[in-house]
Amino acid sequence: MISRAQYQSALETSVRMLERAGIVITPEERPRFEVADFGLGELERTGLEILTYVNTDRVCAKELVMFPHQTCPEHLHPTVSGKPGKEETFRCRWGTVYLYVPGVPTSGPACRPPAGSGAYYTVQHQICLKPGDQYTLLPDTWHWFQAGAEGAIVSEFSTRSTDEQDLFTDPRIKRLPEVAAD
Amino acid sequence: MISRAQYQSALETSVRMLERAGIVITPEERPRFEVADFGLGELERTGLEILTYVNTDRVCAKELVMFPHQTCPEHLHPTVSGKPGKEETFRCRWGTVYLYVPGVPTSGPACRPPAGSGAYYTVQHQICLKPGDQYTLLPDTWHWFQAGAEGAIVSEFSTRSTDEQDLFTDPRIKRLPEVAAD
Repeated sequence: MISRAQYQSALETSVRMLERAGIVITPEERPRFEVADFGLGELERTGLEILTYVNTDRVCAKELVMFPHQTCPEHLHPTVSGKPGKEETFRCRWGTVYLYVPGVPTSGPACRPPAGSGAYYTVQHQICLKPGDQYTLLPDTWHWFQAGAEGAIVSEFSTRSTDEQDLFTDPRIKRLPEVAAD
Repeated sequence: MISRAQYQSALETSVRMLERAGIVITPEERPRFEVADFGLGELERTGLEILTYVNTDRVCAKELVMFPHQTCPEHLHPTVSGKPGKEETFRCRWGTVYLYVPGVPTSGPACRPPAGSGAYYTVQHQICLKPGDQYTLLPDTWHWFQAGAEGAIVSEFSTRSTDEQDLFTDPRIKRLPEVAAD
Protein backbone atom coordinates (compact mmCIF):
# COMPACT_ATOMS: atom_id res chain seq x y z
CA MET A 1 0.00 0.00 0.00
CA ILE A 2 1.21 3.52 -0.73
CA SER A 3 0.08 6.70 0.97
CA ARG A 4 -1.91 9.40 -0.75
CA ALA A 5 1.18 11.65 -0.53
CA GLN A 6 3.36 9.00 -2.17
CA TYR A 7 0.80 8.60 -4.94
CA GLN A 8 0.70 12.34 -5.54
CA SER A 9 4.47 12.66 -5.59
CA ALA A 10 4.89 9.74 -8.01
CA LEU A 11 2.16 11.19 -10.22
CA GLU A 12 3.83 14.60 -10.37
CA THR A 13 7.23 13.08 -11.16
CA SER A 14 5.66 10.95 -13.89
CA VAL A 15 3.92 13.93 -15.47
CA ARG A 16 7.17 15.92 -15.45
CA MET A 17 9.03 13.03 -17.09
CA LEU A 18 6.40 12.75 -19.82
CA GLU A 19 6.58 16.50 -20.43
CA ARG A 20 10.34 16.33 -20.71
CA ALA A 21 9.96 13.57 -23.30
CA GLY A 22 7.42 15.64 -25.29
CA ILE A 23 4.57 13.21 -24.60
CA VAL A 24 1.30 15.06 -24.09
CA ILE A 25 -1.44 13.80 -21.81
CA THR A 26 -4.67 15.62 -21.06
CA PRO A 27 -5.58 17.00 -17.62
CA GLU A 28 -8.38 14.41 -17.46
CA GLU A 29 -5.85 11.61 -17.84
CA ARG A 30 -3.70 12.62 -14.86
CA PRO A 31 -5.89 11.11 -12.14
CA ARG A 32 -6.05 7.88 -14.13
CA PHE A 33 -2.34 7.28 -13.58
CA GLU A 34 -1.72 4.02 -11.77
CA VAL A 35 1.15 3.96 -9.29
CA ALA A 36 2.00 0.31 -8.61
CA ASP A 37 4.26 -0.65 -5.73
CA PHE A 38 3.27 -4.32 -6.09
CA GLY A 39 2.55 -4.43 -2.38
CA LEU A 40 6.22 -4.38 -1.42
CA GLY A 41 6.27 -0.87 0.05
CA GLU A 42 9.48 0.15 -1.75
CA LEU A 43 8.08 2.10 -4.70
CA GLU A 44 11.31 3.83 -5.76
CA ARG A 45 13.00 0.44 -5.99
CA THR A 46 10.19 -1.88 -7.09
CA GLY A 47 7.33 -0.18 -8.89
CA LEU A 48 5.86 1.15 -12.09
CA GLU A 49 3.85 4.20 -13.11
CA ILE A 50 1.24 3.41 -15.76
CA LEU A 51 -1.11 5.47 -17.90
CA THR A 52 -3.49 3.22 -19.83
CA TYR A 53 -4.66 4.98 -22.97
CA VAL A 54 -7.04 2.29 -24.11
CA ASN A 55 -7.91 -1.25 -23.01
CA THR A 56 -10.68 -2.90 -24.99
CA ASP A 57 -11.43 -6.59 -25.43
CA ARG A 58 -8.89 -6.68 -28.24
CA VAL A 59 -6.29 -3.92 -27.88
CA CYS A 60 -4.42 -2.14 -25.11
CA ALA A 61 -1.93 0.74 -25.19
CA LYS A 62 -0.12 2.26 -22.24
CA GLU A 63 2.66 4.62 -21.38
CA LEU A 64 4.96 3.20 -18.70
CA VAL A 65 7.04 5.65 -16.65
CA MET A 66 9.97 4.29 -14.67
CA PHE A 67 12.04 6.18 -12.14
CA PRO A 68 15.84 5.78 -12.13
CA HIS A 69 16.75 2.15 -11.47
CA GLN A 70 13.11 1.29 -10.71
CA THR A 71 12.23 -2.36 -11.35
CA CYS A 72 9.04 -3.98 -12.58
CA PRO A 73 9.26 -7.41 -10.94
CA GLU A 74 9.35 -10.74 -12.77
CA HIS A 75 5.99 -11.91 -14.08
CA LEU A 76 4.20 -13.48 -17.00
CA HIS A 77 0.83 -13.17 -18.73
CA PRO A 78 -0.68 -16.64 -18.73
CA THR A 79 -2.85 -18.42 -21.22
CA VAL A 80 -6.06 -19.12 -19.28
CA SER A 81 -8.66 -21.71 -20.26
CA GLY A 82 -7.21 -21.89 -23.76
CA LYS A 83 -7.43 -18.12 -24.22
CA PRO A 84 -3.99 -16.85 -25.22
CA GLY A 85 -2.31 -14.62 -22.65
CA LYS A 86 -1.33 -11.05 -23.25
CA GLU A 87 1.15 -10.34 -26.03
CA GLU A 88 3.01 -7.08 -25.62
CA THR A 89 5.53 -4.92 -27.40
CA PHE A 90 7.68 -2.53 -25.39
CA ARG A 91 8.97 0.48 -27.32
CA CYS A 92 11.41 2.70 -25.48
CA ARG A 93 10.59 6.39 -25.98
CA TRP A 94 13.02 8.03 -23.56
CA GLY A 95 15.90 6.94 -21.33
CA THR A 96 17.08 3.35 -21.14
CA VAL A 97 15.30 0.21 -20.03
CA TYR A 98 16.87 -3.20 -19.53
CA LEU A 99 14.50 -6.08 -20.18
CA TYR A 100 15.22 -9.60 -18.92
CA VAL A 101 13.74 -12.65 -20.63
CA PRO A 102 14.37 -16.41 -20.86
CA GLY A 103 17.56 -17.37 -22.67
CA VAL A 104 21.27 -17.52 -22.11
CA PRO A 105 22.08 -15.46 -19.01
CA THR A 106 23.90 -12.28 -19.97
CA SER A 107 27.32 -12.05 -18.36
CA GLY A 108 27.93 -8.74 -16.64
CA PRO A 109 24.32 -7.59 -16.83
CA ALA A 110 23.58 -3.87 -16.39
CA CYS A 111 21.09 -4.54 -13.58
CA ARG A 112 20.72 -6.53 -10.45
CA PRO A 113 17.38 -7.55 -8.92
CA PRO A 114 16.24 -5.28 -6.08
CA ALA A 115 18.09 -5.95 -2.83
CA GLY A 116 16.54 -8.73 -0.83
CA SER A 117 14.45 -10.05 -3.75
CA GLY A 118 17.07 -11.85 -5.81
CA ALA A 119 15.42 -15.24 -5.28
CA TYR A 120 12.38 -14.10 -7.21
CA TYR A 121 14.25 -13.11 -10.37
CA THR A 122 14.99 -16.16 -12.51
CA VAL A 123 15.38 -15.00 -16.14
CA GLN A 124 18.67 -13.33 -16.95
CA HIS A 125 18.93 -12.79 -20.68
CA GLN A 126 19.30 -9.01 -21.13
CA ILE A 127 17.77 -6.86 -23.87
CA CYS A 128 18.79 -3.20 -23.76
CA LEU A 129 16.21 -0.78 -25.16
CA LYS A 130 17.06 2.82 -25.94
CA PRO A 131 14.73 5.34 -27.62
CA GLY A 132 13.35 3.82 -30.81
CA ASP A 133 14.21 0.27 -29.78
CA GLN A 134 11.44 -2.25 -29.14
CA TYR A 135 10.88 -5.87 -28.22
CA THR A 136 7.81 -8.12 -28.51
CA LEU A 137 6.97 -10.61 -25.76
CA LEU A 138 4.73 -13.57 -26.47
CA PRO A 139 2.32 -14.84 -23.78
CA ASP A 140 3.54 -17.16 -21.04
CA THR A 141 7.03 -15.61 -21.07
CA TRP A 142 8.68 -14.68 -17.78
CA HIS A 143 10.12 -11.17 -17.87
CA TRP A 144 11.19 -8.26 -15.68
CA PHE A 145 12.67 -4.89 -16.48
CA GLN A 146 14.61 -2.10 -14.82
CA ALA A 147 15.23 1.49 -15.87
CA GLY A 148 18.70 2.95 -16.29
CA ALA A 149 20.15 5.82 -14.29
CA GLU A 150 17.88 8.49 -15.84
CA GLY A 151 14.68 6.46 -15.69
CA ALA A 152 12.70 5.53 -18.79
CA ILE A 153 9.48 6.00 -20.68
CA VAL A 154 8.18 2.97 -22.55
CA SER A 155 5.14 2.66 -24.79
CA GLU A 156 3.40 -0.68 -24.47
CA PHE A 157 1.27 -2.00 -27.34
CA SER A 158 -0.62 -5.18 -26.48
CA THR A 159 -3.68 -7.33 -26.50
CA ARG A 160 -6.16 -6.77 -23.67
CA SER A 161 -4.61 -6.21 -20.24
CA THR A 162 -5.93 -8.48 -17.52
CA ASP A 163 -3.57 -7.50 -14.71
CA GLU A 164 -5.41 -9.57 -12.14
CA GLN A 165 -4.37 -12.74 -14.02
CA ASP A 166 -0.65 -11.92 -14.09
CA LEU A 167 1.59 -14.44 -12.37
CA PHE A 168 4.54 -13.16 -10.34
CA THR A 169 7.57 -15.16 -9.27
CA ASP A 170 7.55 -13.37 -5.91
CA PRO A 171 4.61 -14.68 -3.80
CA ARG A 172 4.61 -11.49 -1.70
CA ILE A 173 3.44 -9.40 -4.64
CA LYS A 174 0.01 -7.86 -4.98
CA ARG A 175 -0.45 -6.57 -8.50
CA LEU A 176 -3.44 -4.32 -8.01
CA PRO A 177 -2.34 -1.05 -6.42
CA GLU A 178 -3.76 0.06 -3.11
CA VAL A 179 -3.64 3.70 -2.11
CA ALA A 180 -4.43 4.70 1.45
CA ALA A 181 -7.67 6.60 1.87
CA ASP A 182 -5.91 9.62 3.36
CA MET B 1 2.27 5.75 -58.23
CA ILE B 2 4.82 8.13 -56.77
CA SER B 3 8.35 8.71 -58.00
CA ARG B 4 11.43 7.71 -56.06
CA ALA B 5 12.17 11.43 -55.54
CA GLN B 6 8.66 12.03 -54.14
CA TYR B 7 9.10 9.09 -51.78
CA GLN B 8 12.44 10.41 -50.57
CA SER B 9 11.10 13.92 -50.05
CA ALA B 10 8.03 12.69 -48.14
CA LEU B 11 10.25 10.45 -46.02
CA GLU B 12 12.57 13.30 -45.11
CA THR B 13 9.69 15.59 -44.22
CA SER B 14 8.14 12.85 -42.08
CA VAL B 15 11.38 12.22 -40.21
CA ARG B 16 11.78 15.95 -39.54
CA MET B 17 8.22 16.15 -38.22
CA LEU B 18 8.79 13.20 -35.89
CA GLU B 19 12.00 14.79 -34.62
CA ARG B 20 10.20 18.05 -33.97
CA ALA B 21 7.62 16.13 -31.94
CA GLY B 22 10.34 14.37 -29.93
CA ILE B 23 9.47 10.93 -31.34
CA VAL B 24 12.58 8.84 -31.88
CA ILE B 25 12.86 6.27 -34.64
CA THR B 26 15.95 4.23 -35.42
CA PRO B 27 17.97 4.57 -38.64
CA GLU B 28 16.84 1.05 -39.55
CA GLU B 29 13.21 2.11 -39.40
CA ARG B 30 13.52 4.97 -41.89
CA PRO B 31 13.42 2.86 -45.06
CA ARG B 32 10.36 1.05 -43.70
CA PHE B 33 8.30 4.25 -43.93
CA GLU B 34 5.32 3.79 -46.18
CA VAL B 35 4.30 6.77 -48.29
CA ALA B 36 0.75 6.16 -49.49
CA ASP B 37 -0.75 8.30 -52.25
CA PHE B 38 -3.67 5.87 -52.62
CA GLY B 39 -3.04 5.82 -56.36
CA LEU B 40 -4.47 9.30 -56.89
CA GLY B 41 -1.17 11.03 -57.69
CA GLU B 42 -1.82 13.99 -55.41
CA LEU B 43 0.19 13.03 -52.35
CA GLU B 44 0.25 16.43 -50.67
CA ARG B 45 -3.53 16.55 -50.82
CA THR B 46 -4.54 12.89 -50.47
CA GLY B 47 -2.00 10.71 -48.73
CA LEU B 48 -0.54 9.37 -45.54
CA GLU B 49 2.95 8.62 -44.23
CA ILE B 50 3.07 5.51 -42.07
CA LEU B 51 5.68 3.85 -39.89
CA THR B 52 4.46 0.47 -38.64
CA TYR B 53 6.21 -0.39 -35.38
CA VAL B 54 4.67 -3.83 -35.01
CA ASN B 55 1.99 -5.87 -36.79
CA THR B 56 1.48 -9.37 -35.45
CA ASP B 57 -1.56 -11.61 -35.76
CA ARG B 58 -3.03 -9.85 -32.73
CA VAL B 59 -1.64 -6.34 -32.32
CA CYS B 60 -0.54 -3.46 -34.51
CA ALA B 61 0.98 -0.07 -33.65
CA LYS B 62 1.89 2.68 -36.08
CA GLU B 63 2.92 6.29 -36.19
CA LEU B 64 0.95 8.24 -38.82
CA VAL B 65 2.49 11.45 -40.16
CA MET B 66 0.23 13.87 -42.00
CA PHE B 67 1.34 16.94 -43.93
CA PRO B 68 -0.64 20.18 -43.56
CA HIS B 69 -4.23 19.64 -44.76
CA GLN B 70 -3.36 16.17 -46.06
CA THR B 71 -6.34 13.78 -46.16
CA CYS B 72 -6.56 10.04 -45.57
CA PRO B 73 -9.54 9.13 -47.76
CA GLU B 74 -12.77 7.54 -46.55
CA HIS B 75 -12.52 3.83 -45.85
CA LEU B 76 -13.50 1.06 -43.46
CA HIS B 77 -11.97 -2.12 -42.10
CA PRO B 78 -14.44 -4.88 -42.87
CA THR B 79 -15.39 -7.98 -40.97
CA VAL B 80 -14.44 -10.81 -43.35
CA SER B 81 -15.78 -14.36 -43.13
CA GLY B 82 -16.93 -13.72 -39.58
CA LYS B 83 -13.50 -12.49 -38.49
CA PRO B 84 -13.94 -9.04 -36.90
CA GLY B 85 -12.36 -6.21 -38.87
CA LYS B 86 -9.65 -3.97 -37.54
CA GLU B 87 -10.37 -1.95 -34.41
CA GLU B 88 -8.19 1.11 -34.05
CA THR B 89 -7.54 3.95 -31.64
CA PHE B 90 -6.10 7.19 -32.94
CA ARG B 91 -4.16 9.24 -30.40
CA CYS B 92 -3.01 12.65 -31.54
CA ARG B 93 0.60 13.31 -30.51
CA TRP B 94 1.32 16.58 -32.32
CA GLY B 95 -0.66 19.10 -34.38
CA THR B 96 -4.35 18.75 -35.05
CA VAL B 97 -6.30 16.07 -36.88
CA TYR B 98 -9.97 16.17 -37.80
CA LEU B 99 -11.61 12.78 -37.91
CA TYR B 100 -14.94 12.21 -39.69
CA VAL B 101 -17.22 9.34 -38.71
CA PRO B 102 -20.88 8.35 -39.05
CA GLY B 103 -23.32 10.50 -37.11
CA VAL B 104 -24.99 13.87 -37.27
CA PRO B 105 -23.14 15.98 -39.85
CA THR B 106 -21.17 18.73 -38.16
CA SER B 107 -22.24 22.16 -39.30
CA GLY B 108 -19.36 24.37 -40.32
CA PRO B 109 -16.78 21.56 -40.35
CA ALA B 110 -13.09 22.47 -40.24
CA CYS B 111 -12.31 20.45 -43.36
CA ARG B 112 -13.60 19.86 -46.84
CA PRO B 113 -12.91 16.72 -48.86
CA PRO B 114 -10.07 17.11 -51.38
CA ALA B 115 -11.11 19.06 -54.46
CA GLY B 116 -12.72 16.88 -57.10
CA SER B 117 -13.32 13.98 -54.70
CA GLY B 118 -16.31 15.22 -52.71
CA ALA B 119 -18.58 12.48 -53.99
CA TYR B 120 -16.47 9.87 -52.24
CA TYR B 121 -16.73 11.39 -48.77
CA THR B 122 -20.02 10.45 -47.13
CA VAL B 123 -19.55 10.64 -43.34
CA GLN B 124 -19.55 14.14 -41.88
CA HIS B 125 -19.57 13.94 -38.09
CA GLN B 126 -16.41 15.72 -36.96
CA ILE B 127 -14.12 14.75 -34.08
CA CYS B 128 -11.26 17.18 -33.42
CA LEU B 129 -8.14 15.61 -31.93
CA LYS B 130 -5.35 17.70 -30.46
CA PRO B 131 -2.28 16.32 -28.62
CA GLY B 132 -3.42 13.91 -25.92
CA ASP B 133 -6.86 13.42 -27.45
CA GLN B 134 -7.86 10.03 -28.81
CA TYR B 135 -10.77 8.20 -30.41
CA THR B 136 -11.51 4.50 -30.86
CA LEU B 137 -13.08 3.22 -34.08
CA LEU B 138 -14.84 -0.13 -34.16
CA PRO B 139 -14.65 -2.32 -37.28
CA ASP B 140 -16.98 -1.70 -40.22
CA THR B 141 -17.08 2.05 -39.52
CA TRP B 142 -16.57 4.48 -42.40
CA HIS B 143 -14.04 7.18 -41.56
CA TRP B 144 -11.66 9.70 -43.06
CA PHE B 145 -9.34 12.24 -41.54
CA GLN B 146 -7.50 15.41 -42.45
CA ALA B 147 -4.65 17.25 -40.74
CA GLY B 148 -4.87 20.87 -39.68
CA ALA B 149 -2.70 23.69 -40.98
CA GLU B 150 0.49 22.47 -39.27
CA GLY B 151 0.06 18.80 -40.11
CA ALA B 152 -0.28 16.11 -37.48
CA ILE B 153 1.32 13.09 -35.89
CA VAL B 154 -1.05 10.37 -34.73
CA SER B 155 -0.28 7.12 -32.93
CA GLU B 156 -2.50 4.26 -34.01
CA PHE B 157 -3.08 1.31 -31.66
CA SER B 158 -5.04 -1.52 -33.27
CA THR B 159 -5.67 -5.15 -33.97
CA ARG B 160 -3.79 -6.63 -36.92
CA SER B 161 -3.59 -4.43 -40.00
CA THR B 162 -4.74 -6.07 -43.20
CA ASP B 163 -4.55 -3.06 -45.51
CA GLU B 164 -5.35 -5.12 -48.59
CA GLN B 165 -8.84 -5.80 -47.20
CA ASP B 166 -9.70 -2.13 -46.58
CA LEU B 167 -12.74 -0.84 -48.44
CA PHE B 168 -12.60 2.68 -49.88
CA THR B 169 -15.57 4.76 -50.94
CA ASP B 170 -13.59 6.06 -53.92
CA PRO B 171 -13.27 3.27 -56.53
CA ARG B 172 -10.19 4.94 -58.03
CA ILE B 173 -8.14 4.21 -54.91
CA LYS B 174 -5.33 1.69 -54.71
CA ARG B 175 -4.36 1.19 -51.08
CA LEU B 176 -1.01 -0.49 -51.50
CA PRO B 177 1.64 2.09 -52.35
CA GLU B 178 3.59 1.86 -55.56
CA VAL B 179 6.91 3.62 -55.89
CA ALA B 180 8.53 3.92 -59.33
CA ALA B 181 11.69 1.89 -59.79
CA ASP B 182 13.81 4.97 -60.49
